[in-house]
Amino acid sequence: MAKNIKNDAITSRDDDFAQWYTDVCRKAELMDYSSVKGFIIYRPYGYAMWEQIQQFMDRRFKETGHENVYMPMLIPESLLQKEKDHVEGFAPECAVVTRGGQNELEDPLIVRPTSETLFSEHYAKIVKSYRDLPKKYNQWCSVVRWEKTTRPFLRGSEFLWQEGHTVHATEEEARAETLQMRDVYVETCKDLLAIPLITGRKTEREKFAGAEETYTIEALMHDGKVLQSGTSHYFGQGFAKAFGIQFLDKDNKQKYIYQTSWGASTRLLGAIIMVHGDDNGLVLPPRVAPTQVVIVPIQQQKPGVLDQANKICESLKAKGIRVKVDDSDKSPGWKFSEAEMRGIPVRIEVGPRDLEKGVCVVAKRNDGVKDTMTIDEALPEKIIALMDQIHNEMYAKAEAHLKAHITESTNFDEFGKILDTVGGYIKTPWCGDDACEVKVKEAYQATSRCYEPNEAKEDDVCPCCGKKAKHIIYYARAY
Amino acid sequence: MAKNIKNDAITSRDDDFAQWYTDVCRKAELMDYSSVKGFIIYRPYGYAMWEQIQQFMDRRFKETGHENVYMPMLIPESLLQKEKDHVEGFAPECAVVTRGGQNELEDPLIVRPTSETLFSEHYAKIVKSYRDLPKKYNQWCSVVRWEKTTRPFLRGSEFLWQEGHTVHATEEEARAETLQMRDVYVETCKDLLAIPLITGRKTEREKFAGAEETYTIEALMHDGKVLQSGTSHYFGQGFAKAFGIQFLDKDNKQKYIYQTSWGASTRLLGAIIMVHGDDNGLVLPPRVAPTQVVIVPIQQQKPGVLDQANKICESLKAKGIRVKVDDSDKSPGWKFSEAEMRGIPVRIEVGPRDLEKGVCVVAKRNDGVKDTMTIDEALPEKIIALMDQIHNEMYAKAEAHLKAHITESTNFDEFGKILDTVGGYIKTPWCGDDACEVKVKEAYQATSRCYEPNEAKEDDVCPCCGKKAKHIIYYARAY
Repeated sequence: MAKNIKNDAITSRDDDFAQWYTDVCRKAELMDYSSVKGFIIYRPYGYAMWEQIQQFMDRRFKETGHENVYMPMLIPESLLQKEKDHVEGFAPECAVVTRGGQNELEDPLIVRPTSETLFSEHYAKIVKSYRDLPKKYNQWCSVVRWEKTTRPFLRGSEFLWQEGHTVHATEEEARAETLQMRDVYVETCKDLLAIPLITGRKTEREKFAGAEETYTIEALMHDGKVLQSGTSHYFGQGFAKAFGIQFLDKDNKQKYIYQTSWGASTRLLGAIIMVHGDDNGLVLPPRVAPTQVVIVPIQQQKPGVLDQANKICESLKAKGIRVKVDDSDKSPGWKFSEAEMRGIPVRIEVGPRDLEKGVCVVAKRNDGVKDTMTIDEALPEKIIALMDQIHNEMYAKAEAHLKAHITESTNFDEFGKILDTVGGYIKTPWCGDDACEVKVKEAYQATSRCYEPNEAKEDDVCPCCGKKAKHIIYYARAY
Repeated sequence: MAKNIKNDAITSRDDDFAQWYTDVCRKAELMDYSSVKGFIIYRPYGYAMWEQIQQFMDRRFKETGHENVYMPMLIPESLLQKEKDHVEGFAPECAVVTRGGQNELEDPLIVRPTSETLFSEHYAKIVKSYRDLPKKYNQWCSVVRWEKTTRPFLRGSEFLWQEGHTVHATEEEARAETLQMRDVYVETCKDLLAIPLITGRKTEREKFAGAEETYTIEALMHDGKVLQSGTSHYFGQGFAKAFGIQFLDKDNKQKYIYQTSWGASTRLLGAIIMVHGDDNGLVLPPRVAPTQVVIVPIQQQKPGVLDQANKICESLKAKGIRVKVDDSDKSPGWKFSEAEMRGIPVRIEVGPRDLEKGVCVVAKRNDGVKDTMTIDEALPEKIIALMDQIHNEMYAKAEAHLKAHITESTNFDEFGKILDTVGGYIKTPWCGDDACEVKVKEAYQATSRCYEPNEAKEDDVCPCCGKKAKHIIYYARAY
């Protein structure tokens, strides 16, 4: 029977990582393709994961003093053009509404690729005095960016995200906000998704269109490639001046505000899959798992088995655990592999023999380890502790993988070999010149992921040009 | 001082209801206009009300077995055309994307006005067997319908809503779903928003494009006009046949599914404003109020006053009450009118003299009644009970207003006078002919809101044509 457990085998992760990824997305029923190229359907299981991420982040946003708003989905082309760098960055990937109510529009409307311009226009209207500051708004929505090649969750013509937009009276406060929100993303990845990160600043080449500084969180996938998973931008007064966002300060002078924005998206779903998944499918960190525990009754037709399963279910549910009993008419083996494909962190098995002994078997999805537990009032707390343990084990494993894939090198010629064999990051000194970044990109198809400003040592040399280095930079091949 | 309490007076509700409405929307900071005509900005206070509605409804959707998903924002024009009635209903008000990534699109894309077609296409793909049924999905999103004349929350080119879409093996189950979701809307209005309703079926003329039957909830506004506030549709097999949504039933036969959809939107914010608001601004039912209690310290510079206010605040917060202290440097009178404009249900005042006595003054926004309460550990429970009382008072008041505005009439000639003087609904027998609806509409600018099928009495006559009546119908002037 073991042979026939899986209804549809998925490609092995090490044989073809890209195909494995797509297989998991489909077979775990996270998404489906729609009839519009590049636009996906978020199926219930995938969307439920996003809801968990939303809840966690939304709570942290509100705790840090942010309020949710909703801006129009369409932006006049003329408004998008107000900030020069910004429009240059986004114009090539816009979807444009040219017809409304059967009439041609005079000023075509862009489906929002991001909403800096709308927030700036609104802030210019409602901010008058230092008393109105700071304004710290966030928006949950979908955005459209026309992409040529797309992959589920990683790159799509439409994706779901949050975009925070804040304005402040001082540069210091805006800079602190930028870093604070980067830290909220780090916390989300660590505490909710069990994903360790590299963070730092983006180079001029890689930063957001219109930003003065972009901070990024970068996550290492199992295949050694890197995924940019969230960004936080400090805008200085660029948009403020383009849109006239001014306030009367305490000293009775008109001043421009300082601005930030920050966003994280359904890309995080891709990160969860590619950091933790294995050859049997998804492996979900317990806190983001829509179903944390599945109870599989063995020989469920035998008296008492299903009752026991339901009893355990109720006791766990009462403690806030997201749990369900799989009492479908499939075989236990089939149920096991479905639960594995969906990455459910904990599986509890209960059968006729367990009934007599008052025990159940508890299996961990992340490493397959099984244990027998007594069914008593302490069980829910034990399962909660077990889920924390699983979270920590998954984080530790991902962290070890990350550490094993940061190679320090000062020899430009060996970059290619490192990327081809070890993969992951090359950590190296950098002079700060764009030309050196381009050289790495052209020679090895690796991009700068982020850098730590002024962290180079006294005698560090940029391996690309041989000049004195200023910064430490991370190169990697990326999604 | 009383004279100067308001920073900006609003138009009196009885002088000019339309202007009063707009004033409240703006002055309570629920929304702002954007630079795209017909597209509004949902400001933090307005959006927070919507979040309360979302939480309530989302919980009820999940309790009744629904799952959230997310479908693409853009629909191919060719897909929208698959169901004939549906496309005829929506084509005139579509926003169309004709350019993507700087190229002209071969098949233009419609910004979703509603998503029946996308759900139908998806269901056709994933439903194979009776084991896959029912599928009960819901989506929270924004939709675009190009409107010529727009009003905040009531009619806009973009609005926020939820759309539920379900498919079932039997007609009976689908019909039960349609009614169940109508009931969830009724419950939302009654238990969350303190709004009583008239519900019933829409006539052929007024039903949703593509539906076999539409059930509606209709709310009566203070000015005697009616607002359609949510609809639930039974589709039969119309979309199933157009999209080929079939399943293999237990009897081994291929059958078409039965389908429903149901939606409620940010129109509900308009209903809250127009049912409960008064000349001092919003009046919010406590359960939907983003801030349920505001504590205003009197002479807050006096020792102990602010401490006491904060202490009360913490004790209420600990019981889950949404409360804040207004410790800004404005005068108490100013704070009172701000809280009134925003409709905060309960205001607590605490000043130096109250300190000595260990009491506070508690004022109700809905009727201005004040009471003195002892500050002790029982205070939070008393405030919770008071909020329930306020909810019930507001519902009772709205219900009395509704009952006083249903006029039974069997004389076509007096319809106009009733609508001009009493307003509200005319309840009357109806033969079932479209021509009679049109006659009422043309003579009195009133539309049929809903009808109760086969509820006419034996000798009831349709007042429009004099023929035998079948149904009871409600006519009203509507938003």
